[in-house]
Amino acid sequence: VKPIFSPAPLYTSSRRSMVVRAEAINPEIRKSEEKVVDSVIVSELSKPLTAYCRCWRSGTFPLCDGSHVKHNKATGDNVGPLLLKKQ
Amino acid sequence: VKPIFSPAPLYTSSRRSMVVRAEAINPEIRKSEEKVVDSVIVSELSKPLTAYCRCWRSGTFPLCDGSHVKHNKATGDNVGPLLLKKQ
Ligand code: FES
Ligand code: FES
Repeated sequence: VKPIFSPAPLYTSSRRSMVVRAEAINPEIRKSEEKVVDSVIVSELSKPLTAYCRCWRSGTFPLCDGSHVKHNKATGDNVGPLLLKKQ
Repeated sequence: VKPIFSPAPLYTSSRRSMVVRAEAINPEIRKSEEKVVDSVIVSELSKPLTAYCRCWRSGTFPLCDGSHVKHNKATGDNVGPLLLKKQ
């Protein structure tokens, strides 16, 4: 593995501002789609509780498969799923 | 604005692999919480369609306020909301 230089500085700073370069949050899921939108007809939910992914790392997207745990540990992030409850 | 060097190379490459440094996807929302999980009791949804944010940029999180459009344009990403439909 041979490190190469970054194409641009990640951070710039001055007395007035810090700019963090904007990054995509979805590296892999359905990249052929212009915008990944999913729909749930809530009356069709079969289980009392269903977890939907918001970390864009799930192998069962749009469902959560627990991959947010690894993502949070690797990055220091704090993301988690949206839970749909039948009551 | 004075550019400074990145703390580490963003990419490393070899014949066998490309490694992209892991980054947090939630820069600002409820960072005092160890994991941001939200629950929706679907029987309490009032509107025929409610959009929930998956881009972590909404000013009305966990609801979508359309901020994914700006995020996608700025980064080349393709993320969008989860739509909950009453039927
Ligand atoms: S796997 Fe993405 S939120 Fe759980
Ligand atoms: S504002 Fe985040 S998905 Fe729409």
